[in-house]
Amino acid sequence: MYDLIIYGGKCWLDGKFEDCNIGIKEKNISYIGKKEEKAEIEINASNCLIFPAFFNSHTHSAMTILRNLVEGNLTEWLKKVQEIERRMSEKDVYWGTMLACVEMLKSGTAGFADMYIHMDSVAKAVCEAGMRASLGYGMADRGDPERAKKELEEGLRFANKWDGAFGRIKCHLAPHSLYTCSLDFLKKVSELGYLKHIHLAETLWEVKELKKKYGVTPVKLLDRIGFLDDKTVAAHAVWLSDEEIEILAKRKVNVAHCPASNMRLGSGIAKVREMLNAGINVCLATDGAASNDTLNMLQEIRISALLQQLRRKPIKFFEIIKIASENGYKAYNFNGGKIEVGKLADLIIIDKKLIFGPRYENFTYSPPQKVSTVIIDGKIVVEDGTILTFDEEKVFSKVEKIAEDLINVLL
Amino acid sequence: MYDLIIYGGKCWLDGKFEDCNIGIKEKNISYIGKKEEKAEIEINASNCLIFPAFFNSHTHSAMTILRNLVEGNLTEWLKKVQEIERRMSEKDVYWGTMLACVEMLKSGTAGFADMYIHMDSVAKAVCEAGMRASLGYGMADRGDPERAKKELEEGLRFANKWDGAFGRIKCHLAPHSLYTCSLDFLKKVSELGYLKHIHLAETLWEVKELKKKYGVTPVKLLDRIGFLDDKTVAAHAVWLSDEEIEILAKRKVNVAHCPASNMRLGSGIAKVREMLNAGINVCLATDGAASNDTLNMLQEIRISALLQQLRRKPIKFFEIIKIASENGYKAYNFNGGKIEVGKLADLIIIDKKLIFGPRYENFTYSPPQKVSTVIIDGKIVVEDGTILTFDEEKVFSKVEKIAEDLINVLL
Repeated sequence: MYDLIIYGGKCWLDGKFEDCNIGIKEKNISYIGKKEEKAEIEINASNCLIFPAFFNSHTHSAMTILRNLVEGNLTEWLKKVQEIERRMSEKDVYWGTMLACVEMLKSGTAGFADMYIHMDSVAKAVCEAGMRASLGYGMADRGDPERAKKELEEGLRFANKWDGAFGRIKCHLAPHSLYTCSLDFLKKVSELGYLKHIHLAETLWEVKELKKKYGVTPVKLLDRIGFLDDKTVAAHAVWLSDEEIEILAKRKVNVAHCPASNMRLGSGIAKVREMLNAGINVCLATDGAASNDTLNMLQEIRISALLQQLRRKPIKFFEIIKIASENGYKAYNFNGGKIEVGKLADLIIIDKKLIFGPRYENFTYSPPQKVSTVIIDGKIVVEDGTILTFDEEKVFSKVEKIAEDLINVLL
Repeated sequence: MYDLIIYGGKCWLDGKFEDCNIGIKEKNISYIGKKEEKAEIEINASNCLIFPAFFNSHTHSAMTILRNLVEGNLTEWLKKVQEIERRMSEKDVYWGTMLACVEMLKSGTAGFADMYIHMDSVAKAVCEAGMRASLGYGMADRGDPERAKKELEEGLRFANKWDGAFGRIKCHLAPHSLYTCSLDFLKKVSELGYLKHIHLAETLWEVKELKKKYGVTPVKLLDRIGFLDDKTVAAHAVWLSDEEIEILAKRKVNVAHCPASNMRLGSGIAKVREMLNAGINVCLATDGAASNDTLNMLQEIRISALLQQLRRKPIKFFEIIKIASENGYKAYNFNGGKIEVGKLADLIIIDKKLIFGPRYENFTYSPPQKVSTVIIDGKIVVEDGTILTFDEEKVFSKVEKIAEDLINVLL
């Protein structure tokens, strides 16, 4: 007897589809096979595909408030965005994150990694939405020792308060980047032994600035201070030399690839094919909604694959699905992202009709628009496209009001 | 008294939104204003955005059958695709086109331009779906005078049979490209005075081949034989020199821009910003579903804008909407694509909630996933996301069967 069984669907097992039933007990997948098992709740998944849920490995979820607002490249964009962020309250971040949860859940994302301000609000939103997340307060000392102390205090306070909460939240330390943090600060952060989440080699501007300041490129610089290891997630990693790809691989650094954001801000195209060939654990991410401007991992799959095609360095369907799910779970140390007995029951069910057919086995370039069911931690969070954990209508109206107030000030 | 009135929505008029009601009489928009007019059918569009419907200005709709099938760049891809196409029957093309209509309608496309084989089947599908289209039989003489004669006969037979049918079909001549048609053939086609639809400067391979053969680049070659004029639609136009952009502008050639297809086949990125600056009528298109692999103009809007951002040559929301609607109608000589009294009543209604907010005025980078209502020629064709003109379930199962038969042969 299981708590939940999904029967009649095509399941994505080990990089291919098999017709089988999935039994869930408490938070985990506990049966995969052809037998007709019984359960408290039974989900009929005929004409459906079942995948591990997606993990959005780098975002700033409350930035939904800034969606479709600012144009321009990263440097101009950061200036405008930071002006608005300075005015954001805890409440703003809470509702912005809830809106992010609406969008992520409907497009099949169960977990995400977030680096931002007012992180207590983000954690609260994650709990209420029923999602999974790895969270870190975005720290930037800007070379000021006093500020460095305060930032690290806040980063640690948040991480120690929320790590392990509800069994769905883990915490990390999130020093923003090499251009907003001093080397001393980054070194101190890396000595604390936490998982680390940092923006790295996002733009050519960043590479040039660091070369000017330190005479060396970003990856080599981080490596020099001993920052790089398997407990590091480097977001973006667009501007890498072959040698730097080798360093990231050797240090077992995880890379959060943000293809749409890198287009949107004119940053460039990451060398995903080469990173995969080097054995790097590449994960997929949307980045924040101010630079994407969606949080839709189904679309991110398509954009990521299209960009590598444009480079004539194709990635395959099985690779891109792994990047979008398993690799993200692995980077942030969650035991999920794969349909396998003993793994976390974070699953999505996709109605085949939304792929438009006639084949459904490979939707790299024609992903469905949404998922019908999302199961997180063994619980149904989205059913027939409707979110069960909270009232999404309320979220829309709250965020509309917040955006109006924040942006009227700006104009 | 109108046949149909849409009230309470935000309408996209002249590049900005206005709160107003739209009255439709027969096939045309006959009222735009604040008055509460009466009509046979009244659509409540509160919390909705109303846009002119999209025009997909270059596709091969029956290629839905080949969706998500072939990888590789254009040359390899063409080889595989042509192998399957040789086996396609009229019936296959009919059902493939019907599947294309399902997808295009649900994502807000009212009209499209098609160049393919078995075009009678395409025309039949367009009629039944209630859509608008400009259609041409894809002609390729491959330098064989006998074949040239037959191809042109078929092109003209089709065009003369279907032009003007149901008031929703127009026909054009569609010589495939400079690398599959002889110059003599293209010259003859251009002397007939029909609207012409041709693949042009899609890949660097094409440019090199033509330079080798004729000592000149594609645009200059077509210009030399007098092919280029305002009754020409050039699909792709990726590899253009500044001089060639000037030629296209001077000759008033329309360009069908296919951003996702150009990524998918590794062809390149079109210089949309420069073409618009030169005054070229740039239209948006998906190309066929074998090289995209969707027919979703909402997503095409996003990809097109993201690609120009990647080039750091931004295009604005008002431009991209015009490219996706008005410019396509104009290129193919339909009096629509704009919300204006006297224009064809081809309109779409978008539920604001699908844009996820908090702002809805500019969804370049976060388009909605679908539209709720599509009106074509003054008739409601899609209502609450459901197609009224035909049974989409039947289409899915027919195309699944066809794809199985065609592809089993290949494997």
